[in-house]
Amino acid sequence: MGIYLNQERKIAIVGCGAGGGTAAQFARKTDRKASVTVFEKGVYPQYSKCGLPYAISGKIPRFEDLIEFSEEWFNKAKIDLFLRTNVEEIDADDKIIKVNNNGKSLEHPFTSIILATGAEPSIPPIKNLSQGGELVKGVEIVRTIDDAKKIKSLLKPEKKATVIGAGLIGLEMADCLYEKKIKVTVVESLPDILSNTLDPDMSAQIKDQISENVDIYLNHFANEIKHENGAIKSVNIQDRESGAIKQIPTDLLIIATGTKPKTSLAKKTGCMLGKHGHIIVNERSETSIKNLYAVGDCTEYTDFLTKKPVPIGLGSVVVRQAIAAGINAAGGSYSLPSGVLQTRTTSIFGFEIAAVGPTLSCFDNENIVTGKFNGSSLPEYFPGGKPITIKVFVNAESGEIISAQAVGDKAAQRINTLACAVLGKLQIDLFKKLETAYAPPVAPILDAVTLACDVVSMKLNRKKR
Amino acid sequence: MGIYLNQERKIAIVGCGAGGGTAAQFARKTDRKASVTVFEKGVYPQYSKCGLPYAISGKIPRFEDLIEFSEEWFNKAKIDLFLRTNVEEIDADDKIIKVNNNGKSLEHPFTSIILATGAEPSIPPIKNLSQGGELVKGVEIVRTIDDAKKIKSLLKPEKKATVIGAGLIGLEMADCLYEKKIKVTVVESLPDILSNTLDPDMSAQIKDQISENVDIYLNHFANEIKHENGAIKSVNIQDRESGAIKQIPTDLLIIATGTKPKTSLAKKTGCMLGKHGHIIVNERSETSIKNLYAVGDCTEYTDFLTKKPVPIGLGSVVVRQAIAAGINAAGGSYSLPSGVLQTRTTSIFGFEIAAVGPTLSCFDNENIVTGKFNGSSLPEYFPGGKPITIKVFVNAESGEIISAQAVGDKAAQRINTLACAVLGKLQIDLFKKLETAYAPPVAPILDAVTLACDVVSMKLNRKKR
Repeated sequence: MGIYLNQERKIAIVGCGAGGGTAAQFARKTDRKASVTVFEKGVYPQYSKCGLPYAISGKIPRFEDLIEFSEEWFNKAKIDLFLRTNVEEIDADDKIIKVNNNGKSLEHPFTSIILATGAEPSIPPIKNLSQGGELVKGVEIVRTIDDAKKIKSLLKPEKKATVIGAGLIGLEMADCLYEKKIKVTVVESLPDILSNTLDPDMSAQIKDQISENVDIYLNHFANEIKHENGAIKSVNIQDRESGAIKQIPTDLLIIATGTKPKTSLAKKTGCMLGKHGHIIVNERSETSIKNLYAVGDCTEYTDFLTKKPVPIGLGSVVVRQAIAAGINAAGGSYSLPSGVLQTRTTSIFGFEIAAVGPTLSCFDNENIVTGKFNGSSLPEYFPGGKPITIKVFVNAESGEIISAQAVGDKAAQRINTLACAVLGKLQIDLFKKLETAYAPPVAPILDAVTLACDVVSMKLNRKKR
Repeated sequence: MGIYLNQERKIAIVGCGAGGGTAAQFARKTDRKASVTVFEKGVYPQYSKCGLPYAISGKIPRFEDLIEFSEEWFNKAKIDLFLRTNVEEIDADDKIIKVNNNGKSLEHPFTSIILATGAEPSIPPIKNLSQGGELVKGVEIVRTIDDAKKIKSLLKPEKKATVIGAGLIGLEMADCLYEKKIKVTVVESLPDILSNTLDPDMSAQIKDQISENVDIYLNHFANEIKHENGAIKSVNIQDRESGAIKQIPTDLLIIATGTKPKTSLAKKTGCMLGKHGHIIVNERSETSIKNLYAVGDCTEYTDFLTKKPVPIGLGSVVVRQAIAAGINAAGGSYSLPSGVLQTRTTSIFGFEIAAVGPTLSCFDNENIVTGKFNGSSLPEYFPGGKPITIKVFVNAESGEIISAQAVGDKAAQRINTLACAVLGKLQIDLFKKLETAYAPPVAPILDAVTLACDVVSMKLNRKKR
C-alpha cells in the first residue's frame, strides 16, 4: 500500500480538529514517505467536538474519551504533531510557514499545506455579556474540551440554565442539562426550533415534547444580562413582536448561536474568501492558491442542489473534505461530489431527527412538490412499532428527489436511503418502487419512506392533468 | 381521484392473499366505477403469512390480528369478496370464469383477471411422513392461519420440536419455538444456514449464536419418521457425507423446505410457465395471455442483476407486483423496475439480518469484488454501540454496486440504502462518498456502509494497477 512518488513532499497542516487530523491521516496513507506535520494551537490532539454535550451530561464517562487520535497515535503514524503551536504566517511563494511554539519562532518549509483552522462561536450583541474583555462568569460557549469542563464544573441540581439558540447544538445542550436535572430555558430569535434542519411542520411535534421539559421562548432574543460579583444572575429576553421584556433568573448562560470562520491566516495569505468570510474551496478541497488546501468550518463549498455556496459545519462533511485534501496534498487524486448534501441527524429529548438537503425556506422559485407520511416503524399488527414521519421534496420539473426530512424511528438510516437517492439523482417514479426490506419484527412491507414518496407522486400526477 | 374510463370494466381476482388483496385495492383506487371481485378458496380475507411465527410465539397476541383487510374493509371499498370459493376454470376467449361456491357452480364474466394463487409447501420425500394421504399427527407446515393455530395448540414446554430447513422461515420458527421453551433441533441439507440470504462468512456468527440455543445439524437430511398411534415420535436424519443416521426424538416436526407454485389453473388456461412451473410475468405483471395478470408466489420474474428468472417469494415483491397488476388491470399504467432486487430481512435469535441482490454463489463468471467491514453502530467513544457487519459486492467492470449483506444494528435500513444504490446503478466511487447522517448518539462519521465500500474500492484499485 501507499504511493511512493515523492520523498521530498512536505505536507503542513494547520489545526488538529477532525479536519486537520483526518487530512493528516489520509496524507500519510497516500504517501508513506512524505513528511506530514500538524500544527495545533490548543493542547489536545484530534477529539470529537460533537461529543462535548454528552461528556458534560456524563453519558460519555470522561472528557479524555473524546480524543479519537492520541499523540501516541500520531507518533506511530509518523506524523509530527506540534501542540500549543500557532501558525503566524504562510509564505505561499517561498513555501515557508512561520510558527510560534511556546514563544519560540520557527520556520517550516512545505510543498503543500492544508488549512483546518475551524470556527469560533459567534456571540450575539447582549449588553453586559463581557467585563474587561472576558465573558462574565457563568456565560459559556461549547466549543472546546476546556469550555465543556468548565460547564460541567458549574452544574448543580439547583442551578438554572438558559440556552441561547434552538439549533442542533443548543437543543443537544438543553437536553443534556435537563438530564442533569437543571432547570433549562431555551431562547430562540426565530419563530421555530431547528430551523436549519427541519421545516416547521416537521419540528412541531418535537417542540411540543421539549416544551414539556424545558421553557422555550421563540421569537425572543436576549438583550441584557445582570450580574453580581462578576457572576451572571439573570438574562433579559425580548419578544421580537411585542417588544415585551422578561427577566429569566440564570446561573449559566449557554450561547449556541452559530459560528464564524477563523480565516485571518487564509486572508493574510491571499486565499479567496466568500461573502461571509469563509475560504472558498472546490471539490478537491483546493483554495484559490495552488498547493493550498482548506477543509472544515473555515470553508464554504457548493450546495448539491441549490448550487449556492454554503458554509461547512457538519463533522461528516468536514471529514470528507479532509479525506480529499489529505489525498490530493499527498499527490493522489480525490474529488468530492459536485456539492454537499448536508445529511444531518441528532437525538434530542427522545426524538431521532434527520434530514438531507435544504429545508423548504432555502429554495427560491423552484417548482417543488413535497409529500409527508406519518406511520409506524412496524406493520400495524406487530406490537412495539414506533412513530416515524418522513417528508420528501421533489423537483416537479426534473422529477428528482432533492431533499428529505425524518423524525422518529431510525430516522438517520431512513434519511441515508433518501440521501443516496439525492446523490444518484433518482427520479421519484423509480425510487418509490424501491424494494425496501420487510419482515414483521423489522419493518413494514411499504416503509414510511415509500409511502411519503407515494404522496409526492400523487400530487405530481394531479399537477400534470 | 380515480380515473373514470370504463364503467363496463370487470376485474376478477383469484386469491386473497397479500397479492390478491393488494391488487384489488389498487384496482379499486385506479377505477372507482369498475366491478372488482375477489375469489378466495380459504375462509380468511387478506392476512399476513409472514406474521404467523409471531402469532405462534404469542408476540402477536391473537391470530385475528394478522388480518390486514377485513371482510368489512372489502365491503366498504365496494370490492366483492367471495370466501370459500374455488375458481375452477378460466375461459380466456369468452372472458368467463367458472367458480364453485359451497358446491354451487357460478359463471362470472370479466374484462381482466389477476391470478394470485400463491404456493404450497414443498414436502421432501421422508419415509412414513403421511398415513392415508394425510400428514402424520405432529408433522406440520406453516402456511395458513389454521396451520399456525394447530402448531400453537401442540406446544407444551416439555415438547421436542425439529425444524427441517434453515432458511428464513425455518429459523424464524426455530426462534419462536425456542422462546416458548421448546427444545428445538434444526436440520439443513446444505452446509450452511440462510444460504439464500447470506454468504457463509456472513452467516457464521449467527450460526454460532443459534447453536448455543438449539441443536443444528447441517449437511443432514431427514429420511424417515417413526410414529406411534398416528403421532410422530422421532425423526431419523442422515449425514450427507458419512451416511451416518441419527434418531431425534420429536413431538413436532416443522417442514420449512420451500414452496412450489400453485399454477394448475394458469396451466389449464394456457399461460406460459417457467422451467420450475411458475407463471412467467413481465414488468407490468402480465402473463402471456392478454388481460391476464399474475402476481406473487405463483409467478417468476427477472432478477435485476443476473437477468435470470427468479421465483417470487418475498411479501415485499408480491405487494409491488400486485400494485402493478391492480393498476394495469384497471386501465392505468404501472411498470416495475427491470427486475427484482430481492431486498430481504429478518430478526432471529437477537440478530437483525438483511440483504439485497444475489449471494456470491448465484453469480457465474462475473468479475466481482467484495468488501466487508465489521464495526460499531456508534462512534467508538460513545457507550452503547452495537456490532454491525456489512458486505458489499461490486461488478469490477462496471464499478456498480450489485449486491450487499448486513448483520447487526439497523441492518435492514442500512441495506435499504445499498438497495437504492443498486436500483440507481450507482458507481462505488460515487456511493462511497455519500454523506451519511452523523451524530454521536446516532451513527459514526463514517458508517459501516461507507467503510465496507472503502474496502471494495481499495481492492478494485489494487486490481487496476
